[in-house]
Amino acid sequence: MADLPHVVVVGGGFGGLYTARALAGRRVRVTLLDRRNHHLFQPLLYQVATAALNASDIAAPLRSVLRKADNVTVLLAPVERVDLAAHRLVLDRGEIGYDALVLAAGASHSYFGHEEWEVFAPGLKTLEDALEIRRRVLLAYEAAERERDGAEQRALLTFVVIGGGPTGVELAGALGEISRQTIARDFRLIDPTKARIVLLEGGARLLSAFPESLSRSAEDALRRIGVEVRTTAIVTRVTADAVWLGGEQIRARTVLWAAGVAAAPLTRTLGVPLDRSGRVLVEPDLSIPGHPEAFAIGDICVFRHQTGAALPGVAPVAIQQGRAVADNVMRRLNGQPTQSFRYRDRGSMATIGRAAAVAVVGRFELSGLIAWLAWLLVHIVSLIGFRNRFLVLFEWAWAYVSWQRGARLITGPWKGRN
Amino acid sequence: MADLPHVVVVGGGFGGLYTARALAGRRVRVTLLDRRNHHLFQPLLYQVATAALNASDIAAPLRSVLRKADNVTVLLAPVERVDLAAHRLVLDRGEIGYDALVLAAGASHSYFGHEEWEVFAPGLKTLEDALEIRRRVLLAYEAAERERDGAEQRALLTFVVIGGGPTGVELAGALGEISRQTIARDFRLIDPTKARIVLLEGGARLLSAFPESLSRSAEDALRRIGVEVRTTAIVTRVTADAVWLGGEQIRARTVLWAAGVAAAPLTRTLGVPLDRSGRVLVEPDLSIPGHPEAFAIGDICVFRHQTGAALPGVAPVAIQQGRAVADNVMRRLNGQPTQSFRYRDRGSMATIGRAAAVAVVGRFELSGLIAWLAWLLVHIVSLIGFRNRFLVLFEWAWAYVSWQRGARLITGPWKGRN
Repeated sequence: MADLPHVVVVGGGFGGLYTARALAGRRVRVTLLDRRNHHLFQPLLYQVATAALNASDIAAPLRSVLRKADNVTVLLAPVERVDLAAHRLVLDRGEIGYDALVLAAGASHSYFGHEEWEVFAPGLKTLEDALEIRRRVLLAYEAAERERDGAEQRALLTFVVIGGGPTGVELAGALGEISRQTIARDFRLIDPTKARIVLLEGGARLLSAFPESLSRSAEDALRRIGVEVRTTAIVTRVTADAVWLGGEQIRARTVLWAAGVAAAPLTRTLGVPLDRSGRVLVEPDLSIPGHPEAFAIGDICVFRHQTGAALPGVAPVAIQQGRAVADNVMRRLNGQPTQSFRYRDRGSMATIGRAAAVAVVGRFELSGLIAWLAWLLVHIVSLIGFRNRFLVLFEWAWAYVSWQRGARLITGPWKGRN
Repeated sequence: MADLPHVVVVGGGFGGLYTARALAGRRVRVTLLDRRNHHLFQPLLYQVATAALNASDIAAPLRSVLRKADNVTVLLAPVERVDLAAHRLVLDRGEIGYDALVLAAGASHSYFGHEEWEVFAPGLKTLEDALEIRRRVLLAYEAAERERDGAEQRALLTFVVIGGGPTGVELAGALGEISRQTIARDFRLIDPTKARIVLLEGGARLLSAFPESLSRSAEDALRRIGVEVRTTAIVTRVTADAVWLGGEQIRARTVLWAAGVAAAPLTRTLGVPLDRSGRVLVEPDLSIPGHPEAFAIGDICVFRHQTGAALPGVAPVAIQQGRAVADNVMRRLNGQPTQSFRYRDRGSMATIGRAAAVAVVGRFELSGLIAWLAWLLVHIVSLIGFRNRFLVLFEWAWAYVSWQRGARLITGPWKGRN
C-alpha cells in the first residue's frame, strides 16, 4: 500500500469527512489531518450553546467513523503551513508530503477588523465556543439573582445577538425559549421571563438569503417568543457591558456574535489569490489556481462558477464538494481530465424555536410547524451514527414534553475553591 | 416568610441536596449555596472521565431539582469563610447570616504533602477533573500514533493509576476496557491493546474496605482485562513522564490520582478541631463541637460515634446524614433536643468492567456478573431525574452491544488555529 499515491485531506468537517469517505477503498493512501478528534455537526451547535444538547450528541470521533476505511489514516495534528510548490505540509512537528491535497479546514469568526470585540462577543464555531456561550448565558441569570443594583441586574438580563443570519436567528430564538420557558420558574428573586433579548441585523431584513416573506415569518415568530428584532442596526462598538449603535447604547452583559466568518488562517500561507474573507478562489473543478493537484472545498473556498454568486457556507455545499473532489482527485491521479463541480440546491432552512421554522425547498416556501417538522427530520437523518441520532431525538422529545433543556450545565474555570 | 428562621446549606452534593429536600415545605427559609449550578452524581464520575458518559448525564441543575421547594433559594456563590461566633458566612461578595447552618461542602484531593504532583497526576472530584482526565487519556493514544521514538511511544501508552480504592479500581478497569475493546481497531500505526495499565496500591490489597475474598476477585478481574496490579507499592515521586517507587521508575505520560482526599479548605476557617484530613470532628447529632446550631455532614466531617471507626466517604452516608441533619435543625430551631445519627449500612460495591464487579450486602459477598447487575441497578435507581436515568441506561446498553463508548470527545484548550 505504501506505493499507492498519497492523498492528504486537511480538516474533518463536512467537506473533509465526505472526501475521506468517498476515497475509502479506492487505490490511494489517504491521511486525514485534524486538530480535533471529532467530526462536528455544526448545524446543531447552537443547541449545545443553548443547553438543549450535549457536546457529544453532535460529535463523532473521526477514528470510529473511518474505522473500516483501511486506506485512511487519521492524524491529530495542526497544519501550520502549506507548501504548494513542494507538495508538502508543515505540521506542528514534522512535515508530510502529498500527491494530491484537499484543503477543507473551514472557517472561523470575522469581526470585520474589530478583533478586540471577540472577548466580549464570542462567536460559535467549535464545541468550546458553544460551551463558553452556554456558560455565559446561564451564569448571567445566576449573577442577576444575586445582584441588588437595578441597572446592573438589567444589564445581566439583557442578551444581544449580533447578526440576523440563520445562526443569529436560531441563537436568539433559543435564548427566548430559555427565558420564557426553561427557567421561567427556577429563580426566587428575579423573573427570568422579563429578560430582554435583542437581535441586531445590519441589513434591511433577517435571513437575507431567504425569500422576503420568510424573513417576515421568522421575525414574527421571534417577536412572539419575546425577541426584540432590529434591522439596519449597525454595531459600532462592543464593550464588556454594552453594545453601541452609533450614539445609542444597549447595556448588556451577554453579547453573542453571529455576524461574520472568515476562512481558516491557513489560506494565507498558500500564496494564491484570496477573497476579502481569506477564501481560496477555486477553479470550476475545485482546484487551487495554478496547482491542479491541490483542491479547496467547503467554507475555506469560494465557488462562483455556477451562478456568478458565491455558494453559501452550508453543510450541503461542503458535502457535495467533498464527494466531487474525491472523484477529481482520482481522475487527476489517473491522468484523466477533471470535471466541473455543480451544486444541487435541495433547499435551506432555519429554525426559530418550538414548532417554528422557515424553509425553502425548490419553489416551495414553508413556515411554522410544517417547516419545523421538516427541519427536525432533515437534521436527525443527517447526523452521523445511530447513537447520535437516537440521543438527539430523545433530547428533543424530552424537551418537547417537559419544556426543559437537558444540558443546563455550567462547566469551565471557577474562582477559588470551597 | 421573611420572619421564618433562616437555614443556610453550603454545598449541593449528596449531603446538601438531601438536606434541602428534607427541609422543603417545613417552616424555615432555606438558602442553598454552591459554586456550581449542578448536583453531581459522583459515583459515576469515573465513567465521564473514561468517555462512557456525558457530563450532563450525571449532573442535574440544582435549580430545577429544587424548583418546587418554594422555601428554598439556590444561590451560586463561593463561601470564603464561616464566622461561627457571629452566625455568618462571608461570600466572594457580601455576607449572609443564618439561624442554623449545614456545612456539606465535600472533599477535594490530597497529595499527602506533595501538592506539586497534582499537575502530573490529576484526581477525580469535579466534572472539569473528569473532562481533563478524558482529554489526557484520549490524547495519549493520539500522540502515540504520531510518535516515532520507541521509548517515548511506550511512555505514551503507559497509564498509571495511583490508589487501589473503589475509584482507582474503577478507573483502571475502564482504562483496560478502552485499550482492549473500545479503540482496539481504531489506529493504523500503534496497537492500542498493547497499552500498559498499572494500578498501584500502597497497602497489602485492593479495596481494603471490602472482605479479602472480594479484593482477590477484583484483582483477578482486573488482570483478565490486562491491568497490572501492584500492591505495597509506595509512590515516592511523580514527574511529567514517570512515577517512582523508591529506586524503580515506571515511565508513563498519563498518571491518575485516586489515593487520597481532604475536606474542603473551608473547614480551616472554622476555628474548631479537625482531623489530619481537615475534616470536622462532629458530635453524635452531627453538630460542630461548641456550636449546636451549626452542623457538618458528608465528606467534610468525620463521624466516629457509631463503631469507633470513621464512616466511609460515600454517597449513602451523606444522604442519610442530610436527612438526619434536617430533622436535627428543625428540633434545634423548635427548642427540642437533637438526636444522634445512626448510619444504616446497606452495603457497598465497586465495578471493574464489563460484567465484573464486587459487592457486599449485609453478610453476602457477591462478585462477577451478579454483582455487576446489582451495581447497574443501584446506580440507575439512585440517579436524579428521569432524563438522566434514561440516558445513562441508554449509553450503557449501547456500550454493551456496540463495545463502544459514547463520549469519546477531546475538548479543552488547543494549540493554535488552522
